[in-house]
Amino acid sequence: MQKFKVTFLPDNLSVAVEKDKTILAAAISAGVYINSNCAGDGICGRCKVIVNQGQVHSQPNGIITAQEKKNNVYLACLTTIHSDLEVLIPDSSRINFDKLTPEELEERLSGLYSKAEDIQSVKAKFQDKVFKHSPFATKLYLELPQPTLNDSISDLERLYRALRSFGEFPVVATGLFNIRQLGELLRDYAWKVTVTLGRRNDAVEIVLIEPNDTTARNFGLCFDIGTTTISGQLINLNSKKILGTKATYNQQAAFGSDVITRIVYAAKTDGLEKLHNAVSDTMNQIIKDLVSEHKVSLFDVNCIVCSGNTTMIHLFLSMDPAHIRREPYVPTANFLPVLRAAEAGININPRGLLSCVPGVSSYVGGDTTAGVLSSGIYQKEEPCILIDIGTNGEIVLGNRDFLVACAASAGPAFEGSGVTSGMRASSGAIQKVSINKNDFSVKYSTIQNKLPRGICGSGYIDLLSEMLESGIIDKGGKIKAAGKRIRSTDNGVEFVVCFKEEIQAQADIVINEADIENLKRSKGAIYSATAILVKHLALEFSAISKIFIAGGFGTYLDIEKAINIGLLPDLERSKFVFIGNSSLAGSREILLSSQAMAMADALASKITYFELSVDPGYMEEYSQALFFPHTDLTKFPTVKF
Amino acid sequence: MQKFKVTFLPDNLSVAVEKDKTILAAAISAGVYINSNCAGDGICGRCKVIVNQGQVHSQPNGIITAQEKKNNVYLACLTTIHSDLEVLIPDSSRINFDKLTPEELEERLSGLYSKAEDIQSVKAKFQDKVFKHSPFATKLYLELPQPTLNDSISDLERLYRALRSFGEFPVVATGLFNIRQLGELLRDYAWKVTVTLGRRNDAVEIVLIEPNDTTARNFGLCFDIGTTTISGQLINLNSKKILGTKATYNQQAAFGSDVITRIVYAAKTDGLEKLHNAVSDTMNQIIKDLVSEHKVSLFDVNCIVCSGNTTMIHLFLSMDPAHIRREPYVPTANFLPVLRAAEAGININPRGLLSCVPGVSSYVGGDTTAGVLSSGIYQKEEPCILIDIGTNGEIVLGNRDFLVACAASAGPAFEGSGVTSGMRASSGAIQKVSINKNDFSVKYSTIQNKLPRGICGSGYIDLLSEMLESGIIDKGGKIKAAGKRIRSTDNGVEFVVCFKEEIQAQADIVINEADIENLKRSKGAIYSATAILVKHLALEFSAISKIFIAGGFGTYLDIEKAINIGLLPDLERSKFVFIGNSSLAGSREILLSSQAMAMADALASKITYFELSVDPGYMEEYSQALFFPHTDLTKFPTVKF
Repeated sequence: MQKFKVTFLPDNLSVAVEKDKTILAAAISAGVYINSNCAGDGICGRCKVIVNQGQVHSQPNGIITAQEKKNNVYLACLTTIHSDLEVLIPDSSRINFDKLTPEELEERLSGLYSKAEDIQSVKAKFQDKVFKHSPFATKLYLELPQPTLNDSISDLERLYRALRSFGEFPVVATGLFNIRQLGELLRDYAWKVTVTLGRRNDAVEIVLIEPNDTTARNFGLCFDIGTTTISGQLINLNSKKILGTKATYNQQAAFGSDVITRIVYAAKTDGLEKLHNAVSDTMNQIIKDLVSEHKVSLFDVNCIVCSGNTTMIHLFLSMDPAHIRREPYVPTANFLPVLRAAEAGININPRGLLSCVPGVSSYVGGDTTAGVLSSGIYQKEEPCILIDIGTNGEIVLGNRDFLVACAASAGPAFEGSGVTSGMRASSGAIQKVSINKNDFSVKYSTIQNKLPRGICGSGYIDLLSEMLESGIIDKGGKIKAAGKRIRSTDNGVEFVVCFKEEIQAQADIVINEADIENLKRSKGAIYSATAILVKHLALEFSAISKIFIAGGFGTYLDIEKAINIGLLPDLERSKFVFIGNSSLAGSREILLSSQAMAMADALASKITYFELSVDPGYMEEYSQALFFPHTDLTKFPTVKF
Repeated sequence: MQKFKVTFLPDNLSVAVEKDKTILAAAISAGVYINSNCAGDGICGRCKVIVNQGQVHSQPNGIITAQEKKNNVYLACLTTIHSDLEVLIPDSSRINFDKLTPEELEERLSGLYSKAEDIQSVKAKFQDKVFKHSPFATKLYLELPQPTLNDSISDLERLYRALRSFGEFPVVATGLFNIRQLGELLRDYAWKVTVTLGRRNDAVEIVLIEPNDTTARNFGLCFDIGTTTISGQLINLNSKKILGTKATYNQQAAFGSDVITRIVYAAKTDGLEKLHNAVSDTMNQIIKDLVSEHKVSLFDVNCIVCSGNTTMIHLFLSMDPAHIRREPYVPTANFLPVLRAAEAGININPRGLLSCVPGVSSYVGGDTTAGVLSSGIYQKEEPCILIDIGTNGEIVLGNRDFLVACAASAGPAFEGSGVTSGMRASSGAIQKVSINKNDFSVKYSTIQNKLPRGICGSGYIDLLSEMLESGIIDKGGKIKAAGKRIRSTDNGVEFVVCFKEEIQAQADIVINEADIENLKRSKGAIYSATAILVKHLALEFSAISKIFIAGGFGTYLDIEKAINIGLLPDLERSKFVFIGNSSLAGSREILLSSQAMAMADALASKITYFELSVDPGYMEEYSQALFFPHTDLTKFPTVKF
């Protein structure tokens, strides 16, 4: 296929592209930035460029004026390439990130390396928690003095000298890859380079050296690697702005729905490799979607922070998880060194860094550490609880003096998996439900108000509460009522939430008795684990000042209804705070601050693990919780049905 | 080809080998150690093994007794494999290195990480220079407590905890490769492992984790990478013993004899790659010879330290040397991070570490730093001189207060290259010569007393001095005498040192006027550089307390004769100390002590570079030195012919 060379000014970067590609596509593959808000639809008019030389074809549009046309101005997204080109990107079409002030730069660099000890001074109050904005990877633009006979130190020492004029970094390391290209790079680009500094455990590494000033292009990713759901965010490391969030089911689900099944599968021939590929493929797909949607080059994604339960992190890094499930339940590592993302098969900048949030034990992982960090319970004076509702539910009880965590195997029902009409909290998921007590007709609302495609966790909580209140089900979860929405099936009696005709779908959206049983076991596991943990520390629920609820519920969770079904304890409603995906939020904080990274290390060391199954009362507590809301109704005094 | 499985006890290590291989060969490829002193000739009787199971053939020998034969004792080197085998290596045949005392262990570890500041206390006197024995890679045998429910920290943290019980290492890093295999390794080998710790710049890295106690097998290499000659040594890092030394011509010589020609070649297509391959191939061949000769497994060679001039180090690491020869003569890097040897194409343990001794400038490299270190001139009270005679001659003048270095392009003549009958200082090289003043008959001695194959540097010094004294050549280097050993050729008049008949060779060993011219320019460059450096510092030769002569002269150099030809200044003979290859000796010190490594860093920063060509008197000084011994005979008052 014939290729043309397109040279972009003022960067003077060239790329060879096929005929008929758009200038915008060429710019993306050259790593050159052109503004664009409409994803290349020719609407926003932000991608105007000037074609200095060469032949192009352009679709007609109402944006380019006659005067502009005369001056060879084109929309990059609607203009295709038909010869070698020289294209000038005017300032108005270049991404215009704010330049750092000297104060901001100082903060960025002074925080680049923080030890846990340094940050004991962080204020104890939640609202005062401020970590310095010192991201995992920081870019620094340097204009080096040219060498002379009187100043003839080597290129690398010259770079270090310039770097050290900004501050005394603990240990600066540079790989041979960067050193090898240094001589030519400095001379080809008039000694003007951008250095990407990354934190590599207790050292600062020169991750990358690029020509010219690329400080405006510094992106990172944070991920929550869940057993059932994987969520990722693309972050502008300069502005801290979340550019986008994506979540999808973990492709590992094909190998079993819980961590134990996956650990067993990992022991089979190629099992570990398959599980590793499933998680990295899932993540790479999310990354690809995020960067293409937000017009970011993968090359400019310099780092990634991942939190996940201990098994997920083992599988992600191809570490054998076998001993996690064998007494005495020892993982290979809880604290992992900073790695290159490429070592875990993650496609960002080939030299980009990867940090995994440290875990506590085999059954309390870095997702919990991240949750404790982002919830801020470690700074509270009064005892608080963090409940992370996921396939592996984790509960942490503590304050600034102590932190105890336990794990409850809740199953994936509240993530919409393993239940007939379940789905993730994404577009088209039913998240709110109310049922007319007379005719059992259903009102609902969906995420993004799309036609319903299924029911997500918060929808199930609402649905169960409403079915209880309207008498459709009894406290044991059996469907007792009759009506046109209620019918028998092979999976027990089911209740139709939406008929397929009204939602233009292939199948009705339903909930059956097996689903209800599933959800009941999930909520029972979470509630009883919380209750046992409180009892274990010789506390009462009434002594708890705040309960933070985390989980993949999207933006909505009805606390009242979660209490109605006995998922959450019956306490003053003002004590509950719904905080969404706390694991993802924590990994984002770590991505954005080296101090948060140090704090995560400190927290993972501080949290103690409590093994539920050794508590003699656990099984009884659990079976009592297998009712809606509970067998002992005195524990739920405000629940009136 | 049919393969048999040989299992070695007590290590319980297996290997698949072809039929007819010896048990000794199988043991080497399994990485199992069996003593052997006679290189497999069946003479030393140290490789006795017991064949528990399987079928073998053994050559008759006088070593195995009838009783031993009954007990299935065989010599591993004379016994071939004819079925699957189980072989027990008795203690008496296992390499028995001394175990470390607790004090030695403490020294080994306390020195593992040293900063230059820590070692300012090193005594200022040369004879007191003692660096701690803390090699670049140190092995530590650990018996970890097995995890229990009450002690369930992760495998990696368990390893770190055990390590830290030996001392507080600055930063401990471990790569994912080691972490991935950790869980299985610890459990398969009853929590008994050997950790190889290596210094990785300012951190300590876990280079390797091996099963069982392998502390006895820890080897390292030091290299002097010269423009013409490459020398390497295999060192037992436990005993500091030099197991062997090998030197050979740098295969890069095919691309030009001096650094400038090589820098020019490096700019051609694939030039840098070819030059890199030439040097790494040369080194790998030396390494292969050393390990096979000393029955060391490459897997047990954990580190390598290299010194060389700046261009050689650039080519070795595939760094573009182009700017070394362009004003203002700036190398890519003088101080290089610790790398993996594999990154430079060196075949030792795949995770083994590589350190290059830091250089001073484009024309004073790490070989000079290593020479300053090993000569100890940096600790002297009075000014001393170090003269390193090589293709790139380096001269350093200084003491504990100052160190100034310059470089003289001497050419490879004294390394036996570019001269008609020249050869390296190796077996069969003529190193001492005397000539009968009456009949010009020649007496000589060769290295290892083999039949002469050529003339090495010290032989040429002797030869020139003797030819001058006997009047065969005049002070300008022209052959004036006549006789049966003197004849005309296309290369000017030549003198026959050995006739081919008397040495059973294809050609006579000769020296002709072109060779003499070559050697004269070499000696003139060295002498004049030394003289200019002394003058530059406003000193006289008489103020110099010691002159250390370094270079690849083997073990012999006649100072008297070197003065006679004007290579060395005419000073009290007791001031001269011949120290052999000081670059190799320095890199060996660095290999054996982290303190020496830190000292090398400090020295490379301290040494200042003096550019000869900017001295207005240099060209005159050089042309005056193009006589034997000098045009100004008052400078050589003791030379009487």
